[in-house]
Order: sequence, then C-alpha cells, then structure tokens
Amino acid sequence: MTSKNKTGFTRRDLLTMIGKTAGGAAMYQAMSSLGFATESHYSGPPKLEGARKGATVLVLGAGLAGMVAALELRNAGYKVRILEFSQRAGGRCWSVRGGDTVRELGGAVQRCEFAPGEYFNPGPWRIPYHHHGVLDYCHRLGVALEPFIQVNYNAYVHSSKAYGGKPQRYRHVQADFHGHVAELLSKAAGQGNLDASVSKEDKEKLLEGLRRWGALDSEHRYREGTITSDRRGYEVDPGGGLMPLAKPSKPLDPSELIQSGLWRYIASGQDYEFQSSIFQPVGGMDMIAKAFTKQVGDLIRYQAKVTKIEQNERGVTVTFADLARGGAIEQAKADWCVCTIPLSVLSQIDIQVGNEMQAAINAVPYGSSIKVGLQFKRRFWEQDDSIYGGITYTDLPISRISYPSTRYGAKGKAVVLGAYIFEGPNSFEFGAMAPQERVRRAVEFGNQIHPQYAGEFDSGVSVAWYRVPGQHGCYGMWTDSTRQQHYKNLCQVDNRIVLAGEHTSYIPAWQEGAILSSLDAIQRLHARALA
Amino acid sequence: MTSKNKTGFTRRDLLTMIGKTAGGAAMYQAMSSLGFATESHYSGPPKLEGARKGATVLVLGAGLAGMVAALELRNAGYKVRILEFSQRAGGRCWSVRGGDTVRELGGAVQRCEFAPGEYFNPGPWRIPYHHHGVLDYCHRLGVALEPFIQVNYNAYVHSSKAYGGKPQRYRHVQADFHGHVAELLSKAAGQGNLDASVSKEDKEKLLEGLRRWGALDSEHRYREGTITSDRRGYEVDPGGGLMPLAKPSKPLDPSELIQSGLWRYIASGQDYEFQSSIFQPVGGMDMIAKAFTKQVGDLIRYQAKVTKIEQNERGVTVTFADLARGGAIEQAKADWCVCTIPLSVLSQIDIQVGNEMQAAINAVPYGSSIKVGLQFKRRFWEQDDSIYGGITYTDLPISRISYPSTRYGAKGKAVVLGAYIFEGPNSFEFGAMAPQERVRRAVEFGNQIHPQYAGEFDSGVSVAWYRVPGQHGCYGMWTDSTRQQHYKNLCQVDNRIVLAGEHTSYIPAWQEGAILSSLDAIQRLHARALA
Repeated sequence: MTSKNKTGFTRRDLLTMIGKTAGGAAMYQAMSSLGFATESHYSGPPKLEGARKGATVLVLGAGLAGMVAALELRNAGYKVRILEFSQRAGGRCWSVRGGDTVRELGGAVQRCEFAPGEYFNPGPWRIPYHHHGVLDYCHRLGVALEPFIQVNYNAYVHSSKAYGGKPQRYRHVQADFHGHVAELLSKAAGQGNLDASVSKEDKEKLLEGLRRWGALDSEHRYREGTITSDRRGYEVDPGGGLMPLAKPSKPLDPSELIQSGLWRYIASGQDYEFQSSIFQPVGGMDMIAKAFTKQVGDLIRYQAKVTKIEQNERGVTVTFADLARGGAIEQAKADWCVCTIPLSVLSQIDIQVGNEMQAAINAVPYGSSIKVGLQFKRRFWEQDDSIYGGITYTDLPISRISYPSTRYGAKGKAVVLGAYIFEGPNSFEFGAMAPQERVRRAVEFGNQIHPQYAGEFDSGVSVAWYRVPGQHGCYGMWTDSTRQQHYKNLCQVDNRIVLAGEHTSYIPAWQEGAILSSLDAIQRLHARALA
Repeated sequence: MTSKNKTGFTRRDLLTMIGKTAGGAAMYQAMSSLGFATESHYSGPPKLEGARKGATVLVLGAGLAGMVAALELRNAGYKVRILEFSQRAGGRCWSVRGGDTVRELGGAVQRCEFAPGEYFNPGPWRIPYHHHGVLDYCHRLGVALEPFIQVNYNAYVHSSKAYGGKPQRYRHVQADFHGHVAELLSKAAGQGNLDASVSKEDKEKLLEGLRRWGALDSEHRYREGTITSDRRGYEVDPGGGLMPLAKPSKPLDPSELIQSGLWRYIASGQDYEFQSSIFQPVGGMDMIAKAFTKQVGDLIRYQAKVTKIEQNERGVTVTFADLARGGAIEQAKADWCVCTIPLSVLSQIDIQVGNEMQAAINAVPYGSSIKVGLQFKRRFWEQDDSIYGGITYTDLPISRISYPSTRYGAKGKAVVLGAYIFEGPNSFEFGAMAPQERVRRAVEFGNQIHPQYAGEFDSGVSVAWYRVPGQHGCYGMWTDSTRQQHYKNLCQVDNRIVLAGEHTSYIPAWQEGAILSSLDAIQRLHARALA
C-alpha cells in the first residue's frame, strides 16, 4: 500500500514523515487535509529504531500479534525469540486441510479428509477493506487476496417458522422489503403525514428517490411487473430468439414478509465490518500465518507450554514445559516480554504483574463459537442453485451456510462452512457433542435448506473454540463495563511485560485487532526500553 | 454446471432427459418441482443430432453468437464455415492490451500502451450469476472467472451540483438514506399514520425491522453514534491497545442528502443485472472469445467482408470481399446460413430475405456508447483511498469510474475504466472528438474526483462503438413499439437463413442475449433442415 511512484513520495510516506517529526496529532490533521482515509490508526508499520545493543525480547505466542511483534522488533534491532504452545504458528489464523489432525480438549481427535486444495477456516475468514493493517501486511508479505462474497442475492434467507420452512431468495426478501417500505413512506408523504418533518421541496425529491430506490411504479406502488422484476428477478427470464416471453415475478405478501422476520438478514452486508470490498487470502486464511512464518519462523520454539512468567529489575524469566520432550521444564530469559497468550489461558498461568493487570486478565470471558466445515461430492449449490459464494442465513442452530468464494465452476469435491454457531446456548449444546456428531447435525439441519445435502455429503470437520488446546475460547468478550474497569489496565506496559492480541483491542475477534494491538504495544515497549 | 456425481444424474441431466422425451412444458414443471432455478431458458447446450450427411452451414460473424452456432452445429454433424469481417474473433467480446492497434471509422488510429497483463474491455465487462449460458460455456471451455466488484461501499458517489462538488463515500449516502427513510417511516407509524395500510401486529414487527435495517436507536432515531457508525463507518475507527478511542461519524444532513440526488446511485447494485455474485473472466473478457476460438478457430475465414447474401431452394450464396487480398471478390455457398452480423451493418448489405424481415433489419437503431480505458502509474485508488475494485458514480460526462477487480494490492501500473458514456448527447460529443482528446477529457473530469489523476496518468485508449469497423454501434436499441412490430419477423427462419446475436434477443447488449439467441436460432434451423 506504500509503493513509490516516479514522482516521489506516496501520501503514506509523507504521513509517516509527518508522524515522526511532528507527532500523532499533526499526522491526523495532515491525513484529513490530504483526503486520506482518516478513520484508520494504521499508516504503515512502525519505524522503530535504535534498540539498545544486545537487548532481547521474548514473545509468547506465535499468532499474528506475536509474529508482528517479532518481525518489527527484530527489524528494530532486538534479539527476539518466540515460544509457541502448539506445533503450528498462526494461532486462530488457521485453515484445516485434508490430512490434518484436529485434537480437542477432552481427547477427541478428528482426521480431516478434505480433497487436495480444499480447506476450511475455523477462525477468521474475512478481511474488510478498512482493516488496513492486515491488508498492508498481506501486500508486503506477498499474500494474494481474492474477494470474499459476503452478499449473494441468489443465496437464501431461511426461517423454520415462516413460509412453511421454505427458504426464500435473498433478492426477493430485500427487494420486497425495500419496495414495501418505499411504498408505505410514499403513501404517508402523499397524505401529508410527513409535513412536519420534511419540507415541500424535500418531499418531492424524496418521492423521486423512493420511487427509484424502491422500484415503485409511476404511482408509487410496488407491484408485480418489469420494474420490480428488474430488481427481484423474473419468474421466467428474458430470453433469446423465439424462446417463451419473459414473465414477471410476484412480490411476497407484505404482511407475511414482515411477520417472517427474514428482513433481519438483509442488513448484515451493509455493516461496516462486512461491506464490500471484503477479501480472503487465496488458498486459506492461514496463508497470512505462513507468510509471517516465512519471516520469523526461525525465531519460533514450538511445543513450549508456558507455566510461569516472572520479572524483576533486570529482566523477564519465562518457565515452560517442552512438550516435545515429555514436558521437561526449561526457562527462557529476556530483557522484555510481549505476551500474546489468550486471556482464557493466561488467566490460568502464574504471571508476575500488578494487581490491576491481573484483575483485568481474569475479567474477560471468552467466546464459545463453533464452526463446521462440510465437504460435498460436488458444488450442487452452483450447479443446481446458481449460488456462487456468499452466505445463506437461517434461524436453525447452524445459523448460516457459507459457500466457497473461490474456484467457481470447478468440478469435484468442495467445502462449505456448514455451521457458524456464534455464542449462545446452541454453541454449548454443539460443543458438548462429539465432533462427528456436530458434523452429522450440521448436515441434518442444512438438509432443510439444501435437500441435496443428504446425498452429496462426503466428510466434515468441526472446531469448538473453547475446546481448542492453547485457546480455550474464540475471542475476548468485552462489555462496556469490563472495558471501563479493566481495558487500560490490561494494555499498560507492566514494567517489562506488555500484552497484545485481539483481546487488547477494540476490534475483538478480528485479525486487525491483533495486529493494531501488537503495533501499539511494541511501540510503547520500545519507548520504555529506550527511556 | 452439469458435472456428474457418483450417485448418478445431476438435476440438469434429468431435466435434459425430461425435455427431450416429454417436451418443454414438462421440463419447466420438473424444473420447478426440483427447486431448480426456474427462471432460465438455459439448461445446457442443445442436444442437436442427426444432421443430414454432407449438410453445410455458413456462419456470418465470429462473435459469440457465431462461434456458439459453429460449435454446436459442427457437433450436430454439419460442415461449418465462418466468415469474419475483422482480423480477430469475438466481436464485441473484446479486450484491448498493450501493443494492440485500435482503428476507427474516420481513420483515427490508436496504439495501446498498457503495461503487460493490463487490459480494458470496451464491450461487455460483467457476467451476472443468472446468465447461465455464458457461465456454462465458461465452465465447459475452461474460462476462469473471478468476482467483479459491482458495489464498493468505499467508492464514491459524486454530483458536481452537491456538497460543493466533493465526492461522498457510497457507504455514507446509502446508510444515511436508509436511516432517514427508516426514521421517517417509523415516525409515521408511531403517529398512527400507517394504520389504514398496516395491521397492529405488522406495525410492531415493521418497527423492529426498520430499527434493525435502518440502524436506528432504541427510540427509532437515526443519530450520530456507534449504531450508525457500525453501518456508515467511524470518524476514527476502533483501534488496538491504547490508540486514541474510536470516534463516531456524523450522518449527512437529511435535507442536503435528499436534495443531492446521490441516492440515485445506491440502487444500481440491487438491479437484477448487477447483483452479486457477478463475474469477469480472469485476464480480460476476451478470454471467452479466445476459448471459443480454440474450439472453432479452424473454421474461421478472417477479413471477409460480406457484401451480398442470396438464397434459393438449393442453398445460400454469400459474396464477400477478401480484405487480405485487396478486396478480391469471392463467393461461399452452403445449404444453410446463420447470420450474426449486427443490424447496423446488415441493414447496409444486400440480403435476400422477405419484406418483413428486411423491414425488421432496418428498424433497429444502435447504441452509441463510448468507453475510455486509462492507465495510471500506480493504484492510487487502493493505496491512498482504500478503494479495491467497484465503481464510482458521477453526474460528469464520464458517468463512472470502475477500478480493476483483480490483482488487488499489486505494484506498478494499472488500468481503470475512466469513462462509460452510455448513450445520450455526451456520447455524440465524445464520439466526435479524436480518440486522444476523449482520453484527455476523461482525465480532466476524473481529476475532479481523484486529484491524483493529473500526476499519475500514464496513457489511455478510447472506443466509440459507432466508429468501430464492422460494428457501427454498441447494441440493438429496441423499444416496446419496435419489438411489437418487428421482433418476431427478425427472428423467424427465412427459408435457409436465420439471424442471431444480442439484437435477436430480449437481453440486448449482454453476451447472454447473443448466446441464447444463437442456441434458439440453430435449434429452429436444425429442425427446418431435418423437415
């Protein structure tokens, strides 16, 4: 994102320079007057320089926060080592592929049987356009991105309590909801009911806007015909030559639509976090982890289970068990420590920090999300239903089905996200099942939406985050009240230790939170080290 | 789209079988009861069989309609030849690349100087998910597809007459329009003004729906705060660690927004033709033409300018000038003829058809669209403005700017669609200019939206469709009245000749129209040939 052009500096270069010489406030002002995306805290990786000769840093956890810290601190001149609990770097930036083994707390073991090239992301799966930190590291480290289809007008929205359980097309529900809203408001305006709120001049323009936006006819009605079918699609599409003539489709009954509650699903693509453009790495989310590992893999010690973190005036001592050698106890020492261990785990580790930080570490419960990846024998959603990527929403426990945003039209097996159980009682019910039982249930529920499920199912994998060793949960669940009481205390540099990860950010559960938190933490740690 | 699975037939196979044995009506019924996309006329390529031994077909024009006809008729057993006016197959399915020469009627010559890998599609540039014919041929012929970003929430909508000419982010206009509409309707409902139209039970649900969909607060107001910022974006985004706190953004003033007219741009992504998922071939639209050429290239005679089309009881005789040999006159004969020459050109050729078809040929004027491709030194729209793909809309003559939906984050030069002048006076004004003057003007106008234009511009190419040799226009512009009077007459098999192309379809200007029209035409011609 900061490539030079022939004429000299990019605006990012300029901003970085301003930031370095005149400080943050001046930089924000400059960003604004340059018309730059003022909203982001990210303006390129930090320019850390001048680490004291021989200064050392121990990074705990080789997820994105840990690897960003290691990369940038090494660039700044520190000697860096990373201790990682598992046999794999990336943490929740993870893709499961054929041949992988997935182990759970409780002992269950799954062996993934996906076809070559197929994968499933149990953790993060999307990168919004305004997650500048993630995008910039992807660009710098050569991670190829492709669009993630968030909104698919031909996918389904489904309620087991509406339309006799028959899934409706997203485009029908959205067009008809918009249309009915536009018609109702036009009617209210026409009857003079908005006169207190809307001026005469604005009313005229508003009516014009509603007509266009809502696909209304010249009398401001949302009615079966080509105007509405050019929005919601046709019963029979226009064709070529002497094929049968097009036939408009019939809008859903307004009352039934409103009662169905299906409108709840049509706003989600409009959320800031899900708006287009939104991306995924080509080949799986862990391509980001792999790209970081290429940079800092030489610093990582795997299968190191941290059991104690101590510090004094001279440095930090971390005690860990070497799981590769039967749990043999070792110690690692450094001048400074960046600890990215999830609070769900860190709260169970003896760490020598102040009372306030310890209270903060203990205060944040973790999410219990569950995902299920299902492989089918063929892409029936494309071949039979013309659904290419995107998400079907349902009130069934599986919550949604997300179709692959890649290799469109490919023959052979393919993997969908068959359940994304985001918190709530269902996540505990599913979490209590054996992994293959979760898969079986996901197929059973999904079959209510795609009757092809039963015949086309091939194999599946499920991940219940609170059962993942080294994670014990999906992400830090802050509330306004815990933020108020604990957030700052959690983020302070405590003598020689600073925490980082999505849990020390205002963007929980997103990789951007982990990266921004890490960049912020190491800048403050570096300042402390130079002080 | 018809790949077999282990369990046997796909639904498409089943439908094809039903169609062949029980006819079209039964097939439609079956499609419906199978839950299939009932709306399409396309259910796989036609199963033509049993051409009379030695029967010959002459196809005029090697665009998509012509090549589809050639491919399927040859498969059916016909001996096929294609006469093509230009030196290139594909017709309007065309991509211009560095090194290409673009000649215009009137003599102007442009030499394209785009960087390797960069291209610009002067003609079709998108493939909707319901264009089943195009998609199926892409899948069959191995054309890789990637998502086309139609809606980009971070792109701009721009009116030279609103907001002092300052472009607004798409997401701000959409969120605020939705929000204000939801608030107004909620207010009207709250005041009992909808009681005649909406029952008490529905009103309650409607209010809930409006609140959620419109990002209203608990009192049904659309106000500055986190609820609206989670939709329209923040003034300062949430960050990590101890970065400055998030700052909500301020909604646009309702009256100013309504008066701006910018709402006109936020519905276009909801149109059936532009809804996601929507695709483009990887590497340029002409990858489709190239894939067809791989199949039927051996049948094509290039630089053959048709001057006369005659027929009698025994066959068809086509007279053409061989432009490669100074216009030497030749004749080609066949039993049957599929003529895909655009009506803009065909109306100037002596063709022996009935009066009604001749009247139809003469009745359809052609579109005058113009496109301009602009290469810049770097992807400033990505690097500076975080716009990855998608379209900026403006009331300036350039009408829109479309950013590349590919190679996101790449370094170096890149090409945008810098103007898409769709009909109207501007298209004639631009068409009258020298090609490089059009480019200069596109840069000048675009600079009002992206001030980087002036400094980053590298080179450009423009295509005015009514100046393209062999095309003389962009697409057949039907009206209800010309359809009524002429369409059927245009599509009939006239003894041994049938016409095909987007102009003989109800999907004008789209490749799907050309393909469906061709499939319909050859099926009727084949039936005639067997009769």
